[in-house]
Amino acid sequence: MRDMLGREEVVTVEKALELLLENLSPVSTPEIKIKIEDSYQRISSKDIFSPEDLPQFARSTVDGFAVNSSDTFGATEGMPAYLTVISEILMGEEPVFDIKKGTVAKIATGGMLPKGADSVVMIEHAQQMDDTMIEVTKPVAPSENIIQAGEDVKNGDLILRKGHRLRAQDVGALAGIGLTEVYVYEKPRVSIISTGDEVVPANERVKPGQVRDINSFNLAGLISAAGGEPVKKGIFRDEYKVIRNIVEESLKDTHMVLISGGSSVGTKDMTAKVINDSGKPGVLFHGVSIKPGKPMIGGIVNNKPVFGLPGHPAAITVCFEQFIEPVLKKISGFSERGFADKKTAVMARITKNIASSSGREDHIRVALEERDGETWAIPILGKSGLITTLVKADGIVVIPLRKLGIEQGEVVEVRLF
Amino acid sequence: MRDMLGREEVVTVEKALELLLENLSPVSTPEIKIKIEDSYQRISSKDIFSPEDLPQFARSTVDGFAVNSSDTFGATEGMPAYLTVISEILMGEEPVFDIKKGTVAKIATGGMLPKGADSVVMIEHAQQMDDTMIEVTKPVAPSENIIQAGEDVKNGDLILRKGHRLRAQDVGALAGIGLTEVYVYEKPRVSIISTGDEVVPANERVKPGQVRDINSFNLAGLISAAGGEPVKKGIFRDEYKVIRNIVEESLKDTHMVLISGGSSVGTKDMTAKVINDSGKPGVLFHGVSIKPGKPMIGGIVNNKPVFGLPGHPAAITVCFEQFIEPVLKKISGFSERGFADKKTAVMARITKNIASSSGREDHIRVALEERDGETWAIPILGKSGLITTLVKADGIVVIPLRKLGIEQGEVVEVRLF
Repeated sequence: MRDMLGREEVVTVEKALELLLENLSPVSTPEIKIKIEDSYQRISSKDIFSPEDLPQFARSTVDGFAVNSSDTFGATEGMPAYLTVISEILMGEEPVFDIKKGTVAKIATGGMLPKGADSVVMIEHAQQMDDTMIEVTKPVAPSENIIQAGEDVKNGDLILRKGHRLRAQDVGALAGIGLTEVYVYEKPRVSIISTGDEVVPANERVKPGQVRDINSFNLAGLISAAGGEPVKKGIFRDEYKVIRNIVEESLKDTHMVLISGGSSVGTKDMTAKVINDSGKPGVLFHGVSIKPGKPMIGGIVNNKPVFGLPGHPAAITVCFEQFIEPVLKKISGFSERGFADKKTAVMARITKNIASSSGREDHIRVALEERDGETWAIPILGKSGLITTLVKADGIVVIPLRKLGIEQGEVVEVRLF
Repeated sequence: MRDMLGREEVVTVEKALELLLENLSPVSTPEIKIKIEDSYQRISSKDIFSPEDLPQFARSTVDGFAVNSSDTFGATEGMPAYLTVISEILMGEEPVFDIKKGTVAKIATGGMLPKGADSVVMIEHAQQMDDTMIEVTKPVAPSENIIQAGEDVKNGDLILRKGHRLRAQDVGALAGIGLTEVYVYEKPRVSIISTGDEVVPANERVKPGQVRDINSFNLAGLISAAGGEPVKKGIFRDEYKVIRNIVEESLKDTHMVLISGGSSVGTKDMTAKVINDSGKPGVLFHGVSIKPGKPMIGGIVNNKPVFGLPGHPAAITVCFEQFIEPVLKKISGFSERGFADKKTAVMARITKNIASSSGREDHIRVALEERDGETWAIPILGKSGLITTLVKADGIVVIPLRKLGIEQGEVVEVRLF
């Protein structure tokens, strides 16, 4: 964005995210049908309704005796109800007899209730008198100690909503109603384009002037954790034509493009030009009031997000959490309420004063330490170009735009990595 | 455990966990060497030291001019320092010239400092006068705007500790120092043995009296999320010999054994007998003061944990979080401080009074809802045998042992699934 005088304008974090999300039409990745064994953490692409009742018959929830509850009304220790045991219900089998007045059948947890029975007397409240007689010392109400047919799920019930991230119990529920396959969205594929004439692959020896590619490994881990599929495109020279070509290719075969590095002034402008030349609307913002991460570029090309990321490792992590992850969630079809997306955080006291400029959101890396039963956050003060500042950190403390800093001893929220 | 009269004693949650952890000798799974691409979320099995410096040379952190800082001392807007640009430093290449008094070289972010230069003047503080001359309007201190050789990592530095779970940035750091393979512990393999004569596989039609296997799908998801590898052994009949055989096999080829279902009185005793007969010390507790989950059995056989789990889905989830996950972490080699292991949680107000017995830890499933800007936790009151009580829930609220309940409006911590 440029202001009225044509100068580049740095936007707020809020504005940057808003620009991205409002310029991105709600198109998700295609849906695919997969086995439920493989569906953990995937996003369902359809509302899922049950094709049947669960359970399909009334079941006991305790070990005891299936009865007609009216036979136990008024039973006490002093005046028990005497009932005749006519059979035992075998697990997994349908009882072939009926419970008539004055009779019961032995039943275990999960057993199917016979006709005529509407409840189960717990074994603790029944005394075996002889081979065929029990005394019941406590009445049961109708439906007591049983799960009714369809009580868990009714045929036609909405089980899981479209856009829901499948958890362990959700997959369990699908198994329970006999759905062994499920429609989910494809994982969004995210291109990682590393740039920089000084960058070499991790498996190469470095010559003077060269450094190994750290950022594509950091980004790949962040993308996977956010539900995407990283696609490493490789390391490319800082030349317009080279970057333009690989961005074009990436826009064709993946759902999002990250261009990392290229943080020098000339290169940044080149990245912005590549994004603008690749399609509409192009660059949405160039520079955000965040530290680290200020030189970040965000854009959309033909409804695919394209980011130009600063080369500093700490900036990569902060930009990912703030901008890339929410956008990735949107294109992944995820549509849940805020807390389903919450990061793990702890409250801690900060060990020293941290200054911050108004008009900038500061993301401070901190290490956590327990001292006298309290959790303390120790700011890791180091250049954002040092990967070890992230390795030593347990999480990040955010100083908001309009806050001028944090005072020693203040309690802050630490968002854990 | 039995009390002095030989009765079965229900232990507290704390005691149960203590019994498990103190009877388990610190043996982790074997270590394996894997590519760093595959190492995200894995546990390192060795302390990792850097084989080299990172970076191996002093680098600029800004775009500007490499100088000897003494040439800029005292420079102001009114009295700038005039310096001669002798060359430009190419990215990824070693400068072949020295910076002598009065001279500078153009440098981009990440460029290698030439000999004789000890700092970089930012481009914003230098004015290009003509082809070869700049004026510098602000002094730089020695080492300003550069990263020194070895400033990120020094040869021999401890980068990551044994027992650490590798995060995105940790893998980035390994790439940075040229380590493309890493030693990690094997994922603990966890056997899931489903029992119950009424239980059939998820892909089968159920006949009256039968239900599908829900728990193995729930458990498999929980195991994977906790860093283990689920090994589904299948569904087995509730017979001593059958269960004994599959437990023996599972103890041989996996690191932990979960026996799910078999919740009837007779079956529970059978599971306990199988555990005791399989090796020492056998059953450590049989019954825990937790709801749901009370009938749980915990044991160790030849230093491998074996659990007998109640058949109710909600009990499975609670027992997993409370007992199985901490034990799984221990055998996975994970040895980090508490917060590295923290669950995501939100604070919420409870919508209704919940009673709880003293002497029992209650785990209440709750759904979350935003009302007038506040988060409310709505208790899901349903039998623990219903899988949908877990599907509808967003998390769990714990009422501790000695607390008699929660009052409507009280703020509680909701541990999210």
